[in-house]
Amino acid sequence: MTTVNEVSGPSRLAQPGEGFSAEEVQLAARNHGLPLEALRYDVTPVGLHYLLTHYDIPETEPGTHTLTIDGRVDHAVVFDLAELRRRPCATQRVTMECAGNGRALLEPRPVSQPWLVEAVGTAEWTGTPLAPLLRDAGLSPEAVDVLFTGADHGVERGVEQDYQRSLPVPEALREDVLLAYEMNGAPLLPQHGSPLRLVVPGWYGMAHVKWLHRIEVLDHAFDGYQNAVAYRVRQHPDDPGVPVTRIEPRALVQPPGFPDFMSRTRAVRPGTVPLTGRAWSGHAPVTVVEVTVDAGLSWEPATLDPAPDGPGAGTEWAWRRWRYDWVAAPGRYTLSARATDASGRTQPVEQPWNRGGFANNLVQRVEVVVLAG
Amino acid sequence: MTTVNEVSGPSRLAQPGEGFSAEEVQLAARNHGLPLEALRYDVTPVGLHYLLTHYDIPETEPGTHTLTIDGRVDHAVVFDLAELRRRPCATQRVTMECAGNGRALLEPRPVSQPWLVEAVGTAEWTGTPLAPLLRDAGLSPEAVDVLFTGADHGVERGVEQDYQRSLPVPEALREDVLLAYEMNGAPLLPQHGSPLRLVVPGWYGMAHVKWLHRIEVLDHAFDGYQNAVAYRVRQHPDDPGVPVTRIEPRALVQPPGFPDFMSRTRAVRPGTVPLTGRAWSGHAPVTVVEVTVDAGLSWEPATLDPAPDGPGAGTEWAWRRWRYDWVAAPGRYTLSARATDASGRTQPVEQPWNRGGFANNLVQRVEVVVLAG
Repeated sequence: MTTVNEVSGPSRLAQPGEGFSAEEVQLAARNHGLPLEALRYDVTPVGLHYLLTHYDIPETEPGTHTLTIDGRVDHAVVFDLAELRRRPCATQRVTMECAGNGRALLEPRPVSQPWLVEAVGTAEWTGTPLAPLLRDAGLSPEAVDVLFTGADHGVERGVEQDYQRSLPVPEALREDVLLAYEMNGAPLLPQHGSPLRLVVPGWYGMAHVKWLHRIEVLDHAFDGYQNAVAYRVRQHPDDPGVPVTRIEPRALVQPPGFPDFMSRTRAVRPGTVPLTGRAWSGHAPVTVVEVTVDAGLSWEPATLDPAPDGPGAGTEWAWRRWRYDWVAAPGRYTLSARATDASGRTQPVEQPWNRGGFANNLVQRVEVVVLAG
Repeated sequence: MTTVNEVSGPSRLAQPGEGFSAEEVQLAARNHGLPLEALRYDVTPVGLHYLLTHYDIPETEPGTHTLTIDGRVDHAVVFDLAELRRRPCATQRVTMECAGNGRALLEPRPVSQPWLVEAVGTAEWTGTPLAPLLRDAGLSPEAVDVLFTGADHGVERGVEQDYQRSLPVPEALREDVLLAYEMNGAPLLPQHGSPLRLVVPGWYGMAHVKWLHRIEVLDHAFDGYQNAVAYRVRQHPDDPGVPVTRIEPRALVQPPGFPDFMSRTRAVRPGTVPLTGRAWSGHAPVTVVEVTVDAGLSWEPATLDPAPDGPGAGTEWAWRRWRYDWVAAPGRYTLSARATDASGRTQPVEQPWNRGGFANNLVQRVEVVVLAG
């Protein structure tokens, strides 16, 4: 018998000192992060935004694509793209981060997509708000979860599936949740969910279902693979865990100077080095960014830029730039930045481990050599 | 003394059985290949084209960017973008491949950007032909090489440099070599060389200098890092080697069915499976594509589509689609396709090893499980 079980291996942790596998590198070659110098852009240019595709990018057709809203609603409805575009339109600037960002730095390392720190990007998403659509369809009083189904199809751990994720009803009814058909002012690209995707500002990327074609209102909590098996913070395989939801605070340093091709170690000229980067959180606005240039022995406050202008730029769910002037003398340094948000969450300097490598916001380390003058 | 030598390690080969290093994964996370399902598109959508950046994507400004042509010419000239856009304009559809494609499959493995088979893409490049610019500047009779300098700056193996590559004069004077300012009908994106790059149809990616700001005509062969040290096919460190130039023939299979997330092994329903993919060569048009479904025991001819229509589509330097109908019964299979071009070059089924992992066109292997019916 040849079944889908044969295409999947079990989940596992790397052994101590075990190098990355060809499977991990294969995922890294097709998915990609933000090149860190692209932290310079308020809005990430097309093609530089991080991208994770669970299965294949499906072949969709904007002209015939439809969205069905059904399940526990008073009247099921079907929309085509033209109908959705005639509804009220909103633009949100949103920083999106993969829930697995930081996984490859963990010890022991969960074997999956091997992100270091770069699985992030900020885009301006334009679409129609979800909440009025749900209200128009008439949510049943028994409604518990809203289930979103994409056109992407594959296997994970032996489970054949269309990609599906649910949101609890109160989250689905937030006024800033969008059904987006444009990114940065242009129709969605195939890899970002063309022609329609969900955008849930503040949540990790797994919630922003791409290639969206069905929204089903459920009278129970969705227990499918992506909610109940994957994307849970657990300490051991039998731990039921807690769901991965909102983005933990993180700051990144835009690496100064110029890099070595292979090591990415930075060479920097001595003198005043204007350090900058971005910081974000999906829980609450970032209130403090601190910088260390001595590998964490001492931390100094950075300056936060005002929230930027532009369409959707007022949202609290887009990253903000920080700045810190470093007076650099020749030598070797390890730079980090650390974000704290208005909810009091801050980034750890020791790793917060979990078995899936999710929601990990250990501070980044940037290796720098300041050259002799 | 802190010097740029401190940011670089020596070149090396992985030990037998050595897993991939964090440095290799770090490169894989920022550079990216073509997700193989994107072989479905004649022209690769923005963001899916492979991308390799040696250093950082530099910050350039289209409004003030200039191109200088100097060296062994009768009169040095400086152009801004508006002036280049007023010159004759041409569009070429070109398949571009990284010279290091396939490196990560080699035994022993050269430790560098770990491409498997996906470092490829096809774009429509629009710009002004280079040859008339050089003729207008007046090439000296002593001209030997034409040197192209980009705005990207970094270190490789201890050598601090702007990215520079030369072409021999006869290649630089080919009528199809472009100074491109558009990709797929839009201004170049930052990561693809905004606002100006060189496009040398048929050559590996290292020749297509991005962020181009200077063209210098030399009376000698350029002996800088990227021509004399990197991008040479050599068998041992002291081998002077031969330069990497044109793209060796390659066919890729668009993986059929649907994938497992982690292993990327394909699950396929039994019956007639229309296999398809692309084939290209930088030496001469592809004339034959063969397919094996039994790991190379037997090869059957595929059908080549006619060359596609569209602007620049008539060029011989764009990939062509091939098709093969596979009658698939349940079981495990390894699929490959093999391209042969009009120069008689064909893909090897045993690895052609060299120390840099360049110009490697070993046939791809796609693992497939055909499910029980």
